[in-house]
Amino acid sequence: MSLIVHKYGGTSMGSTDRIKNVAKRVAKWSRAGYQMVVVPSAMSGETNRLLGLAKELAPTSVDLSYQRELDMLASTGEQASSALLAIALQAEGIDSVSYAGWQLPILTNSAFTKARIESIDDKRVMGDLAEGKVVIITGFQGVDAHSNITTLGRGGSDTSAVAIAAALKASECLIYTDVDGVYTTDPRVVPEAKRLTTISFEEMLEMASMGSKVLQIRSVEFAGKYKVPLRVLSSFTPWDIDLQEEARSGTLISFEEDEKMEQAIVSGIAFNRDEAKISVIGVPDKPGIAYQILGAVAEANIEVDMIIQNISKDGKTDFSFTVHRNDHAKTLDLLKGQVIPELGAAEVVGDAKICKVSIVGIGMRSHVGVASKMFKTLSEEGINIQMISTSEIKTSVVIDEKYMELAVRALHKTFDLDQDKA
Amino acid sequence: MSLIVHKYGGTSMGSTDRIKNVAKRVAKWSRAGYQMVVVPSAMSGETNRLLGLAKELAPTSVDLSYQRELDMLASTGEQASSALLAIALQAEGIDSVSYAGWQLPILTNSAFTKARIESIDDKRVMGDLAEGKVVIITGFQGVDAHSNITTLGRGGSDTSAVAIAAALKASECLIYTDVDGVYTTDPRVVPEAKRLTTISFEEMLEMASMGSKVLQIRSVEFAGKYKVPLRVLSSFTPWDIDLQEEARSGTLISFEEDEKMEQAIVSGIAFNRDEAKISVIGVPDKPGIAYQILGAVAEANIEVDMIIQNISKDGKTDFSFTVHRNDHAKTLDLLKGQVIPELGAAEVVGDAKICKVSIVGIGMRSHVGVASKMFKTLSEEGINIQMISTSEIKTSVVIDEKYMELAVRALHKTFDLDQDKA
Repeated sequence: MSLIVHKYGGTSMGSTDRIKNVAKRVAKWSRAGYQMVVVPSAMSGETNRLLGLAKELAPTSVDLSYQRELDMLASTGEQASSALLAIALQAEGIDSVSYAGWQLPILTNSAFTKARIESIDDKRVMGDLAEGKVVIITGFQGVDAHSNITTLGRGGSDTSAVAIAAALKASECLIYTDVDGVYTTDPRVVPEAKRLTTISFEEMLEMASMGSKVLQIRSVEFAGKYKVPLRVLSSFTPWDIDLQEEARSGTLISFEEDEKMEQAIVSGIAFNRDEAKISVIGVPDKPGIAYQILGAVAEANIEVDMIIQNISKDGKTDFSFTVHRNDHAKTLDLLKGQVIPELGAAEVVGDAKICKVSIVGIGMRSHVGVASKMFKTLSEEGINIQMISTSEIKTSVVIDEKYMELAVRALHKTFDLDQDKA
Repeated sequence: MSLIVHKYGGTSMGSTDRIKNVAKRVAKWSRAGYQMVVVPSAMSGETNRLLGLAKELAPTSVDLSYQRELDMLASTGEQASSALLAIALQAEGIDSVSYAGWQLPILTNSAFTKARIESIDDKRVMGDLAEGKVVIITGFQGVDAHSNITTLGRGGSDTSAVAIAAALKASECLIYTDVDGVYTTDPRVVPEAKRLTTISFEEMLEMASMGSKVLQIRSVEFAGKYKVPLRVLSSFTPWDIDLQEEARSGTLISFEEDEKMEQAIVSGIAFNRDEAKISVIGVPDKPGIAYQILGAVAEANIEVDMIIQNISKDGKTDFSFTVHRNDHAKTLDLLKGQVIPELGAAEVVGDAKICKVSIVGIGMRSHVGVASKMFKTLSEEGINIQMISTSEIKTSVVIDEKYMELAVRALHKTFDLDQDKA
């Protein structure tokens, strides 16, 4: 019988009543004959509570020893919720066992608070599944080669679930969450937004990276790399709805481009106000400057999203990129303190009051003029574009954050996303 | 420089302010040049909160899978408080690192919820100490040979601390707690009770086993077995009191019987109302009955304390023993369901409304008549004795629990324990 991975977010695990509901849902799948592996997040609020305690003790420290302890601390939330779910399943009469990351192990690198999974040993899980047990595996955490606990960063339980599904060659990984699927854009911004029944892996990657917040981006990358069929669906349907109906609900992230997909030019509008813009002005235009700037940033473990370099003028060029808003001040300090003096650049300026808006769609590959239609729409609304970045299946612009809702609504309408599709 | 182990209870770790105080105290010792290992309990209330959640999910289950998950769950409390203490020390400028039991490992057997330590690997700790780090080790928990997390039972952090002190050959193990030492008896029952500056290991063992609640009994056993000098002292003194003064405070559990000890006949009065009495009446008096009764009890992992067998009459005998009050009903069920029918005993009766009162003192070894003085005192107070058990350094009686305070106060006075000693 096929092996299924379920992942439940913190809201779904938020109280003992909700954990009982998760247990009943998982028990339904188990009784229907599926081999079940479940990856729960910490109970909602728990991770914040723990990190809040740490902050009371050490408000500002960021060194490696501190981050190691943060991971020791934060990982307890998932361990507790996993044990609780195992107990709830046992109370349902389902034999079950929970494992922390180190018990399999789920091996990661040593980048505390934002580690990456390197391998998952499936021996123990496969043995338990063969004995008919439901296996619960803590999300969000692993262990490095020196037996230190690591965590994968916020939302890391999605990544855990997909990586586990890949390692176990699961038929499908179901991400139960507080939304019922992936929408053409955020329905809180555009009430006319429609749920997509399928979306391609590449589009989902762009939607996730834009902060659609349905799935953590790394989980989508993992799903793409290992071809794990991924479904986003609601954990708020009654646990006893028909299993086949449940199995078809939500949004399937698909790896086969069918004809239907080709018909839609733009599948969705993504947006994100978690980024900040950094511009290094008046950089001498010579080989290696991008590396000099971004190498230092990468070494500080700061992730860079958009990167733009304009053509040079008088032997000088301007170099801009975006980072997470939380890393904005740190990046500015880093560049001012070390990189700018070495480079001989004129100055570095930052702007945290920006947002990124993207149109995403596989159909863009074969349709010209999609980007220009986007720019025309923004211009008609009087919105100035600060940065542009394009890929085969998306076009992103950085604009002043105050225009975000206006831009998203206008684009949603321009690309006919509020029309029901066949 | 000498290696010292500190253990802090849940009350001492009960808030971030208290954790900061613990960190300042440990930092003081570290700066004075001691190699420091610290074993913290979970923040007060945390273990109860976690086990309360489990109880909401599965009110009655007691099977092995369930107990395994309880240990997964409960162990998170100590892991979190250890990480928090490491962070608080780092904020004090002291390099520190925390370890869960499995990370060393602290190897235990697989008796979930009441495991016993089998070995402790000191390699990692010794390496960190050599680098000048303060090492925090989670109390209460270990790992079995199959990489399952185990816990040592309530109060198990004391045992962890002493076992760690033994493994690391520490000069002294300091148990910081909410009382300032070991008293001649519980000051809440006898206000005239005096603090002992030293007590022998054997006396402490008897005091601890009688529920003086200062130390978990297994920790005292461990200290005795490995000759770990153990000190019980208050965690409520200001953290910045003179280190030498602090190092001499509380009560030292000593392994050398000095003259002063010999002078006191009785060192203290211990009592305990956590026990229940079980009597198997009319057992055919033949070889093997004690084993038949207690073997079944031990197999069910129920600990037995006092055991009394009277002389037989008409080929029948009565067999009595005490168990923890929590195990009372379970023991009765076990005996009624299985053992009594096999034995052909007449009946089994239980009484949970008892208490045990003991006089404890190394001096009893060389002084006759101490026990009879005890019985005389109780008789003068009109207290009926139900069971008697003696050892070289203690005499215990089981009496109706309603006489407990009366008995303790009378005995405290009889043995001159409320007089100041030179």
